[in-house]
Amino acid sequence: MTDLNRIGQHARTAAYHLAALSRQQKDDALNAMADALSEQQETILQANHADMEAARAAGTSDALLDRMVLTPKRLDAIAADTRKVAQLDDPVGEIFDVAELPNGLRVHKRRTPLGVVGVIYEARPNVTVDIAALCLKSGNAVILRGGSDIRQSCAAITSAIGTALGRTGLPTTAVQSITDPNRDLVRAMLQLDTYIDMIIPRGGAGLHRFCIENSTIPVITGGIGVCHIYVDPTANIERAIPIIMNAKTQRPSVCNALDTLLVHHDLAPLLLPTAGAALSAAGVELRADPEALALLSKTPGADAWKLVSAGPDDFGTEFMALVLSIRVVDGLEQAIEHINAHSQGHSDAILTTDRSAADAFVQAIDSSAVFVNTSTRFNDGGQFGLGAEVAISTQKLHARGPMGLKELTTYKWVCESDWLARP
Amino acid sequence: MTDLNRIGQHARTAAYHLAALSRQQKDDALNAMADALSEQQETILQANHADMEAARAAGTSDALLDRMVLTPKRLDAIAADTRKVAQLDDPVGEIFDVAELPNGLRVHKRRTPLGVVGVIYEARPNVTVDIAALCLKSGNAVILRGGSDIRQSCAAITSAIGTALGRTGLPTTAVQSITDPNRDLVRAMLQLDTYIDMIIPRGGAGLHRFCIENSTIPVITGGIGVCHIYVDPTANIERAIPIIMNAKTQRPSVCNALDTLLVHHDLAPLLLPTAGAALSAAGVELRADPEALALLSKTPGADAWKLVSAGPDDFGTEFMALVLSIRVVDGLEQAIEHINAHSQGHSDAILTTDRSAADAFVQAIDSSAVFVNTSTRFNDGGQFGLGAEVAISTQKLHARGPMGLKELTTYKWVCESDWLARP
Repeated sequence: MTDLNRIGQHARTAAYHLAALSRQQKDDALNAMADALSEQQETILQANHADMEAARAAGTSDALLDRMVLTPKRLDAIAADTRKVAQLDDPVGEIFDVAELPNGLRVHKRRTPLGVVGVIYEARPNVTVDIAALCLKSGNAVILRGGSDIRQSCAAITSAIGTALGRTGLPTTAVQSITDPNRDLVRAMLQLDTYIDMIIPRGGAGLHRFCIENSTIPVITGGIGVCHIYVDPTANIERAIPIIMNAKTQRPSVCNALDTLLVHHDLAPLLLPTAGAALSAAGVELRADPEALALLSKTPGADAWKLVSAGPDDFGTEFMALVLSIRVVDGLEQAIEHINAHSQGHSDAILTTDRSAADAFVQAIDSSAVFVNTSTRFNDGGQFGLGAEVAISTQKLHARGPMGLKELTTYKWVCESDWLARP
Repeated sequence: MTDLNRIGQHARTAAYHLAALSRQQKDDALNAMADALSEQQETILQANHADMEAARAAGTSDALLDRMVLTPKRLDAIAADTRKVAQLDDPVGEIFDVAELPNGLRVHKRRTPLGVVGVIYEARPNVTVDIAALCLKSGNAVILRGGSDIRQSCAAITSAIGTALGRTGLPTTAVQSITDPNRDLVRAMLQLDTYIDMIIPRGGAGLHRFCIENSTIPVITGGIGVCHIYVDPTANIERAIPIIMNAKTQRPSVCNALDTLLVHHDLAPLLLPTAGAALSAAGVELRADPEALALLSKTPGADAWKLVSAGPDDFGTEFMALVLSIRVVDGLEQAIEHINAHSQGHSDAILTTDRSAADAFVQAIDSSAVFVNTSTRFNDGGQFGLGAEVAISTQKLHARGPMGLKELTTYKWVCESDWLARP
């Protein structure tokens, strides 16, 4: 059986090494990783092919198979992304909060890597490279545990990464994958608090909950969003429709996609028929509360829509599909109450032309990102200018919303007295 | 039995209310708290007296009884501290990382309260007020669980706080104490992740470990320090001795007190006799490795010292007492290796006049605070200019080292498109 303690010790030792590297050394290793992924493409594709065969034989769904598959084109894109990470600024070593205190102490904070990051993910082999690259750039060692259905792909990718690390003089144990399919290892990994500083789960709600309940290591939770748009009576309808359409239909299977539309009752008779037609034309099933249902069902053409009465579970549900729940509310306060009761604190938006309504909404909504006249889909590290994204956090400690390289770091206090120069 | 879910719901509701308060409203409540503590002093002292009687009857140690006892003077000091918290800056509402992105989005981060903080502490009734004041100032609701031996004191103090909250129009459920002695409630509180955003344990290593192992809520761990001072061969001995003395003897029972002295072998024959004499005069027991023992034992007067051979457990132990382990090392590298192997990442120091040795030490030591020519005792929110301290974190997520008001907050992203002004 895999010796997790040994893996942990190796990672910790590698982490000390990585923390002292210059930016150039890390960037060289990242570019070498991209090279090695290209050189070993055939081996990686063969390993992925073996994973796919086994998954097909086990009756895996087409959707899951599509997530698992690697192609030369996908591998090229992954290698190119690794080179992009090399171009990002290195957060490590940043000095901030510099102060000379009344007691004569000189104090500053210095940004340092976290140490060892543990990542548990599902059937996406590309996560292996994504996360390894971001951890390396931020000076962290990483222990990866991909889904057992992609274990051969993960092993091959990790081997290519190891080649690159070795070539550039870095410890090959900076990036380790646990490919033993024994599921007990996940639970044991979550208890390895002597060696791992942070756990990032990348997957569905079940995986997040499993990590929260079993980990003695801090877990970054996220990835689950019940996202709302509230349309205020002053909203510009022509501009509201494309935002709603973008939020719901651009990529319905992701966490920042829209789940519930709240409309002020003064605007509902104007907005809902147009919105309903546009959404229905895009194949969206509408689950409406009584007032919304009455307005929608009398719209010409509504007979052909997927329009049903909303049940209580339709509010507060992340649909991950072309389904939208709709409720008519009597004002801003009711909208805020609804969202704070049903949101998972991911992404919520107001559409309005009234500055005071926008301010009140932003103040009251307790979510990782609050949007004004903007689609919830913009809660994304790339869109917010982070350059890269490790995860979207919906918890409140450490980091909230999109996490980039800086969120893979911590700091230490450095404190000096004033007599260093006077021997 | 205490209904924890109800307490959690009340705290969450109070938290929404607190998040919207102005600084003035919070400061008024804090000053009212100080008033109420003075007005209800007699009731609080009576409750404390009852706790003390019960503890004495149960054979509680004098040291613990001293922690538990409240006196008019101590209560006055607690009330005065509450007024000081009112004078600190309010971190909530700060806007930072403002950016206009190439995609046209205007993004900023806005500092917000965490929400609901859960604090589990031992037999120190003053923590009830300290933490309540800091949570209130930072806009957080708090659920307090003091040790069962101070439950009557906690109940009386919480009641006085409730009076103040009511008088100033704040929800009295902003500060709640669980005074039911049933110990299962602690475990249940640690699983109340629907309502509590952060757990702060205030107590010994056992309490911290219990929280880490049983909590589904993020836990701020800390309070445990195995602190080192390494004396480099270039150190100024005259200046080194008072720093070592301060670190070891000023308050030996706290987490930032010195546990292990590492001395370079070139300096050891000069430093150790003087240091040994000074430490012994202050009643410190010295547990020395063979080389240090040889040097110390031949010092004139050493016969009268508490000087013993160090066992393997004497390195990596937090003594919390007038005991110091001493090791002679052959250089900076060995000192760093020793510290990173034995430290708990709390506070470690180098004494040197060599800038490059200081830089190498600061770079390599992975602790919450790294000191140059400064006593480890300075790892403290007050000394570092935070104004107040909730805890000293030795974990790496969210906050490291002393945590003040800002560390009781999180942020939300606020993202706007540019058409708000154009209806």
